[in-house]
Amino acid sequence: MNGIHTHRFNNGFRLALEERSTLGVSLELHLPFGSALDPEGKAGLSALVAEWIFRGAGPYSAQDLLNRLDDLSTGRGSGGVSSEHMPFKTSCLPEHLEAVLHLLGVVLREPQLQASELRSLKALALADLETMQDSPADQAQLLFREALLGKGYGHYASGTPESLKSIRHRDAVKHAGRLSLEGAVLTVVGPLDWERLLDTVNSIFGDWQAAAPEFPTAHLNPPFQMHQPSPTQQTHILLAHPAFRPSDPEWYAFMLAVNVLSGGSSSRLFDEVREKRGLVYGVHAGIQVIRDVAYLQTYASSSPGKARETLQVTLEVIAGLKNGISAAELQHARTGVLSDLIMSGENSRSRAAQMARDLWRLGHVRSLKEIQQCVEKVTLEQVQATLEGWTPELLGLFTLGQEALHVS
Amino acid sequence: MNGIHTHRFNNGFRLALEERSTLGVSLELHLPFGSALDPEGKAGLSALVAEWIFRGAGPYSAQDLLNRLDDLSTGRGSGGVSSEHMPFKTSCLPEHLEAVLHLLGVVLREPQLQASELRSLKALALADLETMQDSPADQAQLLFREALLGKGYGHYASGTPESLKSIRHRDAVKHAGRLSLEGAVLTVVGPLDWERLLDTVNSIFGDWQAAAPEFPTAHLNPPFQMHQPSPTQQTHILLAHPAFRPSDPEWYAFMLAVNVLSGGSSSRLFDEVREKRGLVYGVHAGIQVIRDVAYLQTYASSSPGKARETLQVTLEVIAGLKNGISAAELQHARTGVLSDLIMSGENSRSRAAQMARDLWRLGHVRSLKEIQQCVEKVTLEQVQATLEGWTPELLGLFTLGQEALHVS
Repeated sequence: MNGIHTHRFNNGFRLALEERSTLGVSLELHLPFGSALDPEGKAGLSALVAEWIFRGAGPYSAQDLLNRLDDLSTGRGSGGVSSEHMPFKTSCLPEHLEAVLHLLGVVLREPQLQASELRSLKALALADLETMQDSPADQAQLLFREALLGKGYGHYASGTPESLKSIRHRDAVKHAGRLSLEGAVLTVVGPLDWERLLDTVNSIFGDWQAAAPEFPTAHLNPPFQMHQPSPTQQTHILLAHPAFRPSDPEWYAFMLAVNVLSGGSSSRLFDEVREKRGLVYGVHAGIQVIRDVAYLQTYASSSPGKARETLQVTLEVIAGLKNGISAAELQHARTGVLSDLIMSGENSRSRAAQMARDLWRLGHVRSLKEIQQCVEKVTLEQVQATLEGWTPELLGLFTLGQEALHVS
Repeated sequence: MNGIHTHRFNNGFRLALEERSTLGVSLELHLPFGSALDPEGKAGLSALVAEWIFRGAGPYSAQDLLNRLDDLSTGRGSGGVSSEHMPFKTSCLPEHLEAVLHLLGVVLREPQLQASELRSLKALALADLETMQDSPADQAQLLFREALLGKGYGHYASGTPESLKSIRHRDAVKHAGRLSLEGAVLTVVGPLDWERLLDTVNSIFGDWQAAAPEFPTAHLNPPFQMHQPSPTQQTHILLAHPAFRPSDPEWYAFMLAVNVLSGGSSSRLFDEVREKRGLVYGVHAGIQVIRDVAYLQTYASSSPGKARETLQVTLEVIAGLKNGISAAELQHARTGVLSDLIMSGENSRSRAAQMARDLWRLGHVRSLKEIQQCVEKVTLEQVQATLEGWTPELLGLFTLGQEALHVS
């Protein structure tokens, strides 16, 4: 097992390194800055700021920044914002790491925030909205999320044409002022010396004192059934059911149960909905985590004529989980999860991402061995007890397509 | 550098291993079986057979097979078919590899091909077609490909509702009889002993003698401009230009030039079309290779009002490549390509895929070091000479959206 180091700086910034004898370095930086912070009527503002800071910072023009990042063969690494964080994911050669961190420091701490860039940034966001509207599956996902979580955690990060129009330069400057490292995490995987990394990160970020923006509390709306009429070929179906959270003691048992529901190709949903009945090409269930809230999300799309049966069978299979799983199913699920853990753990990029999720959600980084042991020691009795304590209540049904579906 | 072993069996099957001290094993198996072999009027037949062979084989029922594969935590690994091959991509623990290969052997050599499965297989293919029709970007890509390559290499692997309807049990049985290992490749990355792997593969596949199906020759249709009216939000634009092939001496120089066009975030297309003008959210160019044919494919989508400018700027940027690139641009591109090579080379799955592509296209596996040296030794003069010998002729323009676009 490789060594894991972690440190919390005085400004609330947390750093973790897993030493590995790889040729490259992978890193993830997550800042507490996301669309849940968008002010009323200004949806899209956080995502816009996430693009804006790369349009010139410190002594560098936008073109300088991109050239320098390309020189370091690291790319921007920015994927906009989620509702709760602004991530940078990148890889580079070990000898370039300090220069990459230096550039990220300049971008985050000294963005030029030029008014002249706003027009093209808004045009980009509008283009993203249009792309979205050409994809019913993505559109259904967004509308479902908004119905389930409400504005804030539920609205689309790129905003709306109206909200983008209402964003002024002063709004954006003020909002960019909320960038902070308090609660931010940086995870690094590679052949690095911990003391030296600590010094580097400290010299770039250690003296940045700024309080973290205050996030609203995330919550699920009351159960709903909603339909969005759309002239699509398929009916897109999204479901929400309760789930345990990563910090709950039931987490590993529940995660394995969900794997029985929708993990490998012998999983219950795949078998009942796709293989036995040919109702859909794909069907998938997974646990979604947004701050302190978790839910089980299921997605399927089928032709309108088969949508009712697809919904019915899917709901039955989910509800059937309540009755428990077999020893053989637990064994399949465990093998699958452990194998994924090994394979993705060997990939530095996946490992840096996993470490960042841990540090963000749990406040500490689990070693691969620790996760492995937690998965291995789950007993069939624990899974059954967990499922007995779980209610397959329908928290949300969202359909997009030609005809609405309802559940009584 | 790790050791690479290769072997060609008497039946024309090629095996390659790159020894690595990883915990897991990654493998890719590519068979010469794809939608270009679909008989006239029976488009979708090859893809259907690729699903069918997993619906029971040898002594195993469909459910047995999925359970066994899940037990080995390897999944089916099947991604249907492309026009020219049927791939299996999977990972497993080293101790499971022999069992995984044994199962693949049974699936490929002793499929049950039960008539009773055809109905659900056709339903699945129809569901896939419907999913596709709900995604204008994918639909545009498919129609573009058919216009450029014609039926055979150009038609969609899942077929059409009509062609699926016309498929009979006897067609499918006959078509499944064309499965062969002649020209097939298996690449493996992991902590394995070469002699033992050779023995295992030989015992499972060595005595399977069957001539490879004869593929048609791939070719590009004469230059075309085509529009598909569609009530989409965006205009989806696809372009084809000439490109060099992996087996051409100009390959590395041209690949670096294309990286200048559309590689990192300082690339010309990204900069001119997205960053400077905000015309599109994304724009991308890349080299497509289909058997002996290669072309440069560019995709952009923009709002209808900006589509004309997007097309014009994109064409200008592509044509501008003919005038050469700067030393700084070559340096950026080289650093980017080398860094990607290192990072993806460290990932066993990517490496197994790269090895399979090499063995399939070039007949041998390049080591990472070999690729690295080829990229490093390309001079600016070679790039300029390559671009002088290249014609940015428009081979195809395809648009999908509310209004047609033309180029004079």
